Amino acid sequence: MPQLRQDPVTDNWVIIATERSKRPHDFPVYRENRRGPENCPFCSGKEECTPPELWAYREAGSQPDQPGWWVRVVPNKFPALKIEGSSERQREGIYQTMDGVGAHEVIIETPEHEADFSRLGLEQVKEIIRIWRDRYQDLRRDHRLKYIQIFKNFGSVAGASLEHPHSQLIATPMVPPGFWEELRGIQRHASDTGRCIVCDLVEHETQKEERVFVRSDRFIALCPYASRFPFETWILPREHRHDFGSISEPEIEDLAGVMRASLHKLGTALQSPPYNLVLHTAPVNVDGVEQYHWRIEVIPRLTIVAGFEWGTGYYINPTTPEIAAESMREALMQ
Amino acid sequence: MPQLRQDPVTDNWVIIATERSKRPHDFPVYRENRRGPENCPFCSGKEECTPPELWAYREAGSQPDQPGWWVRVVPNKFPALKIEGSSERQREGIYQTMDGVGAHEVIIETPEHEADFSRLGLEQVKEIIRIWRDRYQDLRRDHRLKYIQIFKNFGSVAGASLEHPHSQLIATPMVPPGFWEELRGIQRHASDTGRCIVCDLVEHETQKEERVFVRSDRFIALCPYASRFPFETWILPREHRHDFGSISEPEIEDLAGVMRASLHKLGTALQSPPYNLVLHTAPVNVDGVEQYHWRIEVIPRLTIVAGFEWGTGYYINPTTPEIAAESMREALMQ
Repeated sequence: MPQLRQDPVTDNWVIIATERSKRPHDFPVYRENRRGPENCPFCSGKEECTPPELWAYREAGSQPDQPGWWVRVVPNKFPALKIEGSSERQREGIYQTMDGVGAHEVIIETPEHEADFSRLGLEQVKEIIRIWRDRYQDLRRDHRLKYIQIFKNFGSVAGASLEHPHSQLIATPMVPPGFWEELRGIQRHASDTGRCIVCDLVEHETQKEERVFVRSDRFIALCPYASRFPFETWILPREHRHDFGSISEPEIEDLAGVMRASLHKLGTALQSPPYNLVLHTAPVNVDGVEQYHWRIEVIPRLTIVAGFEWGTGYYINPTTPEIAAESMREALMQ
Repeated sequence: MPQLRQDPVTDNWVIIATERSKRPHDFPVYRENRRGPENCPFCSGKEECTPPELWAYREAGSQPDQPGWWVRVVPNKFPALKIEGSSERQREGIYQTMDGVGAHEVIIETPEHEADFSRLGLEQVKEIIRIWRDRYQDLRRDHRLKYIQIFKNFGSVAGASLEHPHSQLIATPMVPPGFWEELRGIQRHASDTGRCIVCDLVEHETQKEERVFVRSDRFIALCPYASRFPFETWILPREHRHDFGSISEPEIEDLAGVMRASLHKLGTALQSPPYNLVLHTAPVNVDGVEQYHWRIEVIPRLTIVAGFEWGTGYYINPTTPEIAAESMREALMQ
């Protein structure tokens, strides 16, 4: 019998499709046609191919837009949003419009083209998280910006147009409606019980263990109860934290280990599937959002989102999170 | 400068990405590897390969599950939801679950494997809409069901696992949250102005014409102002109608012409792109939903939904709806 499961934060339902049940080896293995480092604008030595760098961690004495960096941030060459312009709304007949004000940056995660993000050294992953935090803290000082979205598309099926390891940041002048939907769910639970539903979820999952597959003192990685996608993964701070931008140094060190192990295990269990990694955190320059509890979502692209999902917002997941988490626990770090 | 446009129903924003502007010929042409009719369970003569038929339009004297039909409805062999079970909710620790109660049916749109849906005869398209309506009216009599989603996935990139022309119907025991979001927007506008925002939109677009590309007495096809996707298309009744299930015979005849012309033009403008076609209508067995205004959405799969869209719910559209509609107007019926 198919099962419907409800997300405890948003109250949305997910269909766990037992009639179409899929285990890890049932998914097709996706093989990327790699183009190699030739003409790659993100490689060390090709700094002139990107817009001037915004920020980098680089060797003492090395110059901006020259080699010597190990993590480097540049503006996106084809930005979805731009920093110039006005966030004033204009009417166009019955419609409303505004300038596409915001920021769109690329975080080049390593100078090495062929590096695999999930197998980078632990120190390098810490540096990537630190530079995410730095850009986050810098951009939030622009009071026109209301939300900072950090994400990573891995593999062309997941939307990556360049194969050199990189993540992206887009800052928008408005708060995504999905954030308010989650916050409403959290506030509903808090006014009923006085507690944060996400803290409750972390505690419940930590005790049960069936959906958890990596943990440290400060973070936990699990496949959520109402997973919309096979092997959907959430990485959560175990203590209540609403704002990614104020992550502490010990938290960065813990998160690096949990994130690296999670992606490494995913790559082993499913043979390097394409995926999207997405930060969900509180908006910036907006009051009253401290009840939110931030997380990172990793969504492997194993199924196709089609007409039913577009029409209803309900997802059909052929793999239970319990089976997915079991595979992830068994996947060894190689 | 990129532009932000607001959807007048949901108030969501869309990014019109002028820096990445794409005209129709900039999109890659998707070539399907066709498998042909061999082993196709939907072809005439293969009726024993599907579960027993639920409904069909067939020649007088022909028998169920035998040839002689021109449109045929069968249960999905791997249903996402099933008609048996209870819609009672059960607790599982901090979570809620229920049986996957509902219906999942396949509408086989023609006995001919190689037929192209967008080039079927007008009479055949009317028959498809009539059988959608018949199934809709039959299923709504089951009071456990709250929403009936009719959709069509065309092309494997858009989620079709079989190439024989078909659409699907999934009925769910709960109302999708996106419906309530739209209804709230409609009610907000109605309490401000006393009018239906979708009726206003139809009137506004009919007068301006820049985003409209097909119209009849009763229906209109257009690329919406805040299109999330290149060539996104909405087909709307021009008069206020909340319920697809009560579509009249003259409306079916008009809709068939507008839907057929729209898909035919899309196929010409973009060389048969993969797409999802999705009905958005009021829920069934639920009161107070008469303010809704139903529509059909057609979403060509030309761009990849990636981390930013998953994280924020905002879409980056590289083609303005004005350019898309112009191409659609110019695309001839061949």
